[in-house]
Amino acid sequence: MLVVKKFGGTSVANKERIMNVARRCAKDYQEGNDVVMVLSAMGKQTDVLIDMAKDINPTPSKRELDMLLTTGEQTSVALMAMAMATLHIPAISLNAFQVAMHTTSVYSNARLKRIDTDRIRHELDQRKIVIITGFQGVNKYDDYTTLGRGGSDTTAVALAAALHADSCEIYTDVDGVYTADPRIVKNARKMKEITYDEMLDLATLGAGVLHNRSVEMAKKYGVQLVVRSSMTEAEGTIVKEDTKVERMLVSGVAADKNVTRISLIGLKDVPGIAFKVFDVLAKANINVDMILQSIGRHNTKDITFTIAEDARDEAIKVLEDKKGSLAFEEMSENSNVAKISIVGAGMMSNPGVASKMFEALYNCDININMISTSEIRVTVLIDEKEVEKAVNAVHEMFGLED
Amino acid sequence: MLVVKKFGGTSVANKERIMNVARRCAKDYQEGNDVVMVLSAMGKQTDVLIDMAKDINPTPSKRELDMLLTTGEQTSVALMAMAMATLHIPAISLNAFQVAMHTTSVYSNARLKRIDTDRIRHELDQRKIVIITGFQGVNKYDDYTTLGRGGSDTTAVALAAALHADSCEIYTDVDGVYTADPRIVKNARKMKEITYDEMLDLATLGAGVLHNRSVEMAKKYGVQLVVRSSMTEAEGTIVKEDTKVERMLVSGVAADKNVTRISLIGLKDVPGIAFKVFDVLAKANINVDMILQSIGRHNTKDITFTIAEDARDEAIKVLEDKKGSLAFEEMSENSNVAKISIVGAGMMSNPGVASKMFEALYNCDININMISTSEIRVTVLIDEKEVEKAVNAVHEMFGLED
Repeated sequence: MLVVKKFGGTSVANKERIMNVARRCAKDYQEGNDVVMVLSAMGKQTDVLIDMAKDINPTPSKRELDMLLTTGEQTSVALMAMAMATLHIPAISLNAFQVAMHTTSVYSNARLKRIDTDRIRHELDQRKIVIITGFQGVNKYDDYTTLGRGGSDTTAVALAAALHADSCEIYTDVDGVYTADPRIVKNARKMKEITYDEMLDLATLGAGVLHNRSVEMAKKYGVQLVVRSSMTEAEGTIVKEDTKVERMLVSGVAADKNVTRISLIGLKDVPGIAFKVFDVLAKANINVDMILQSIGRHNTKDITFTIAEDARDEAIKVLEDKKGSLAFEEMSENSNVAKISIVGAGMMSNPGVASKMFEALYNCDININMISTSEIRVTVLIDEKEVEKAVNAVHEMFGLED
Repeated sequence: MLVVKKFGGTSVANKERIMNVARRCAKDYQEGNDVVMVLSAMGKQTDVLIDMAKDINPTPSKRELDMLLTTGEQTSVALMAMAMATLHIPAISLNAFQVAMHTTSVYSNARLKRIDTDRIRHELDQRKIVIITGFQGVNKYDDYTTLGRGGSDTTAVALAAALHADSCEIYTDVDGVYTADPRIVKNARKMKEITYDEMLDLATLGAGVLHNRSVEMAKKYGVQLVVRSSMTEAEGTIVKEDTKVERMLVSGVAADKNVTRISLIGLKDVPGIAFKVFDVLAKANINVDMILQSIGRHNTKDITFTIAEDARDEAIKVLEDKKGSLAFEEMSENSNVAKISIVGAGMMSNPGVASKMFEALYNCDININMISTSEIRVTVLIDEKEVEKAVNAVHEMFGLED
């Protein structure tokens, strides 16, 4: 069996954890499996490097920031290969150049395009564990790129797809996917299985276990994902096309505080104005999430939308720069907001799920700011202060603790 | 003018020093020069990484150690490019993969074979400062290699040769080459110029300013070197084929404490035994320096030689392993020894220089352990405790303070 195993920064944060991960993978190897490992940078190393960069230049070029950040994973994989050697397991570390991990050109948020598997196959054929840097790639200019948030998950899934691996195990600091964040909801329950689509919505909505790009890719290439803990032997949650578990109406509640709401007030009520606004943001590589358009005073339009809080400064900058051509009267923003979402493949054929959620929130006096829905998801924007109360209320309303 | 400027770890140890180096190179750039920078890892970062490795695996594979160590220079060059941006100087960092810095396959002590200049030329043509990782290369397996001690100097000289640079400036924590180590000899004098051969002997003998491989390469390709300080604006020392300065009998005194003396006692007195001994060491990539062979008791031979103290453990190991086939009776070693050397191109045509050195040592009661000479150098092995006394005595004997 060929298994790709991805370990995040927490799992390789220090010597003890590196050895722990090494022993775990050695066991799999000794059972006769081919093992490919994907590692993130150790602990908070990426943040440390970003701080070093910003200390020298508050707005470092993304090309050079990627050049800096890629040292993080390279450090992890080299140390892991050394750890394997102490267990007498043949292993070799490879970075994005050595694998040939081709990405698009965009620095700091590149997409994987193609992975050469020759070198990896060659090393696996020699019965080595192959330890690969997550999060990083190389673009057509022969420059390092990084894959943005959750990039190492994407690397692991892409490798599993390219190698036709039997399974892609994502090791993290939680032991699976829960019906809600266990730190917020005491009786949240771990799910045995979940569909790609459900996981995708949970990921998109900040459940924080897997990044949406990695789940999208897993779905596209039919890679079976397993989310489990690197600290315990507990069985994790399997993410796949369809689950055998009886379909719940709602499978989980997700909360995301990394949200900023921006309103453009007094836009001209002419065709194409929404396109112009979101084109400006798209060109700056800013993902827009919820969108609300309403009629303002004096034949004008107001447009309100949410973005990740990380992108707040840049969004405001690019919109201010285009204030002339977009012709809005004023811009307001609020980062003290959060998204609460319910997700469930069973929702599709069950009307009334959304209103049940609104009822739960109404019962505890929480004001809903914006609403957005998809086939298997309902999301509301609320005040950040109300997140805990809201998640618990919704979790209870749908009986998810059972 | 195209200038290659190399900065060691001390010169880029922190933010202030990085900015200082950036400003210095920006000035050169603004005067219209093409500037290529070569950087080492920041401060003691290489040692920090080695310690991290050894904490996990006391004997890490050299392949993985090189993979780890190369992150050090990559960090420096990325930060330097960011520093240049704050000065509004276009700059780009490149690592060994991006330049295509081809080396031999030997990990941890590779030799540069060929440097592709296309990418560098392309960036220079766009009027960018090009900032290149020193010390590292890529071998035919597409693995990182490192160039061993003084590797960044070698990178700089090789780049200067490949780019036909007008000058290669080596910035260090001293402001030039002195007639003796100023920390040992108070009235040591800075030399304006020195020949490659003199510098080569000083480098080989541990004067510690430039590594011999870089000087050898500079001589071979006629690259004019300048050794100067990154902290002061003082003029440095120029290293070139021939100097205009009137030839001194002796130009400098060098001391090297990084020496271990090993003796193999009671070897069989048969042809080829010396070859066998040194072949074992050569195969382990250990450089042997001084060699003394003498007749032992009972028709046996004794062979005594010196190596760098760093190589002590490995040398003892490989010799013990071959004790059977080499058939020596016993091995002894002493690391409390040091080499003292006088160097001078003027020595060639002047007999009596060596005896003048021995006289200086005799006058202060220092015992000479081994002697080795070349055309422009005399080296003696003495007790490590006597180094200061010896260097001062010899420096004074040849009137080097004037």
